Amino acid sequence: MKTDKILLDHGSGGRASHKLVSELILKYFNNPILEKLDDSAVFEVEQGRLAFSTDSYTVDPIFFPGGDIGELAINGTVNDLAMLGAEPRYLSVGFILEEGFLISDFDRILQSMRKAAEEASVKIVTGDTKVVPRGAADKIFVNTSGVGFIPRNVNIAGKNAKPGDKIIVSGTIADHGVTVLTQREGLSFQSALTSDTAPLNHLVAAMISTSDQIHVLRDPTRGGVATTMNEIAIQSDVGVMLYEDAIPIRDDVRGACELLGLDPLYIANEGKLLACVPADHVDRVLASMHHNRYGKDACMIGEITNDYPGKVFLKTTIGGTRIVDMLVGEQLPRIC
Amino acid sequence: MKTDKILLDHGSGGRASHKLVSELILKYFNNPILEKLDDSAVFEVEQGRLAFSTDSYTVDPIFFPGGDIGELAINGTVNDLAMLGAEPRYLSVGFILEEGFLISDFDRILQSMRKAAEEASVKIVTGDTKVVPRGAADKIFVNTSGVGFIPRNVNIAGKNAKPGDKIIVSGTIADHGVTVLTQREGLSFQSALTSDTAPLNHLVAAMISTSDQIHVLRDPTRGGVATTMNEIAIQSDVGVMLYEDAIPIRDDVRGACELLGLDPLYIANEGKLLACVPADHVDRVLASMHHNRYGKDACMIGEITNDYPGKVFLKTTIGGTRIVDMLVGEQLPRIC
Repeated sequence: MKTDKILLDHGSGGRASHKLVSELILKYFNNPILEKLDDSAVFEVEQGRLAFSTDSYTVDPIFFPGGDIGELAINGTVNDLAMLGAEPRYLSVGFILEEGFLISDFDRILQSMRKAAEEASVKIVTGDTKVVPRGAADKIFVNTSGVGFIPRNVNIAGKNAKPGDKIIVSGTIADHGVTVLTQREGLSFQSALTSDTAPLNHLVAAMISTSDQIHVLRDPTRGGVATTMNEIAIQSDVGVMLYEDAIPIRDDVRGACELLGLDPLYIANEGKLLACVPADHVDRVLASMHHNRYGKDACMIGEITNDYPGKVFLKTTIGGTRIVDMLVGEQLPRIC
Repeated sequence: MKTDKILLDHGSGGRASHKLVSELILKYFNNPILEKLDDSAVFEVEQGRLAFSTDSYTVDPIFFPGGDIGELAINGTVNDLAMLGAEPRYLSVGFILEEGFLISDFDRILQSMRKAAEEASVKIVTGDTKVVPRGAADKIFVNTSGVGFIPRNVNIAGKNAKPGDKIIVSGTIADHGVTVLTQREGLSFQSALTSDTAPLNHLVAAMISTSDQIHVLRDPTRGGVATTMNEIAIQSDVGVMLYEDAIPIRDDVRGACELLGLDPLYIANEGKLLACVPADHVDRVLASMHHNRYGKDACMIGEITNDYPGKVFLKTTIGGTRIVDMLVGEQLPRIC
């Protein structure tokens, strides 16, 4: 069967499924664990702590400046593991494809998934492909799950923020969400907005090797920095104070947000992290981040306080203080 | 926000997402690992071998006699782990919901997932929920991934079948596929066809504790017994001979297949397994299966041969022999 489109046959479990797996998927993802093609992947583990995470990706459009749904799916799960201090190791991939989806687009997505997996030093060891009739899904949805190993002595969690901790962001915010939104709406801006999608595990490893006092790591994806800091405030039962003029935002992103009436604090990021670290560890942690390409613009944007546990405040540029709630409603469906 | 339908807000990552997770999902799935609500679940492992598997579920209709998409999603990944001899332990769940999906239907699915997880003795430890606009998906898709521990001395894999092995099936075939198809097409038969969806890990544990010579285990889902036996023939480079009159099929399933022009050998099962075991271990393995509710109808249906490696043959009821190929084309989209 020679075809340039995904057919229902490709999801049948039969001959066409096998052809798709052996000729396309294994071409990009092959490794000794995956190629066994058993119902599960099998690998050895040492005694210790494992991190396990899952995420589904439904981003629209599937290709956007700076990345695509495949790269996002690899980086997203790599980052979810890294936020617990884990070293991501093995990933699963589940595809739901719409009948008629172009095989050339699928090929391009697989290619960028391989590239992303290589950069993050993770292996795709097991997978699944389903095909649904035309109209029952939109082109392609991707799920990735992953496992990683948490090094001894690492204890990072959303509940560990302490009053006095400083809050670090690894770079400019809102790049991903604004890029996808402007693409989808067909808005063209003079400047070249690009998604920040990136694997953050190597950055996290550098931070951990510099300081054993990293209390919290979190990647501010859906709901943005505002929602993520609210989650930390609740989980740790602490207050949060952010300094508006310390938060790095690209000029073109700020401009697009103003034009579209969006608050960048609520926009999704896909290659940024927030960290809470004691004041006397901030300098060394920032220095370690500045050596990594994904942390070169890292800076301090706020602090953890004793006041109003569970609440987030913003000291505004004009000198006032306002409360920053979790995202209410939905600004941007299918952003990741 | 009081609503009886899933809204885009529920996938925003913001307040409505948190409400959905805390009021609905945690209500059914809560456990000490999940309730931390960090980006990853964290758990301790002993040194050894881990099995890791993933599957996406797109079955249509989502509710059918004998089960629903949620139960299928739990049992499917439990079974994929069990087919390597692993004891399934931790599951992730990823939902893709269509805007407008009824919360009461979601509630019903969550409830049956909890029941299935309890029966299989697995914990749901991490998850993700995305909502896509109306028309971008069909009601609900579910991905589950899972990890399990493989006991020492267990070595079960698709490549381990040996000439002389006998082939066992754990019960009647084609029940799931025929049930879903007749439901979808609105066909009503006199008898009550029901899906066989079931967790097979306790059955597998009983088999393993009886015999250390179980070479292959495989659950014949998409593509049915015919496709699965072809996979084993290829992976182990052996021939397969099946005996048509030994293969158990319910009369009503056989009748429905004849009426619809379907070959039950190619129809999906969701609670059955195929095993390859040496001839002198068959009796004790069958005896151990007969004590389990999901193996009470287990029987021998064929054998592994030296002839025609990679091929599957069927000795027919009327005395002939025909080749049984992998499924070509697609009989039943969205069967699981």
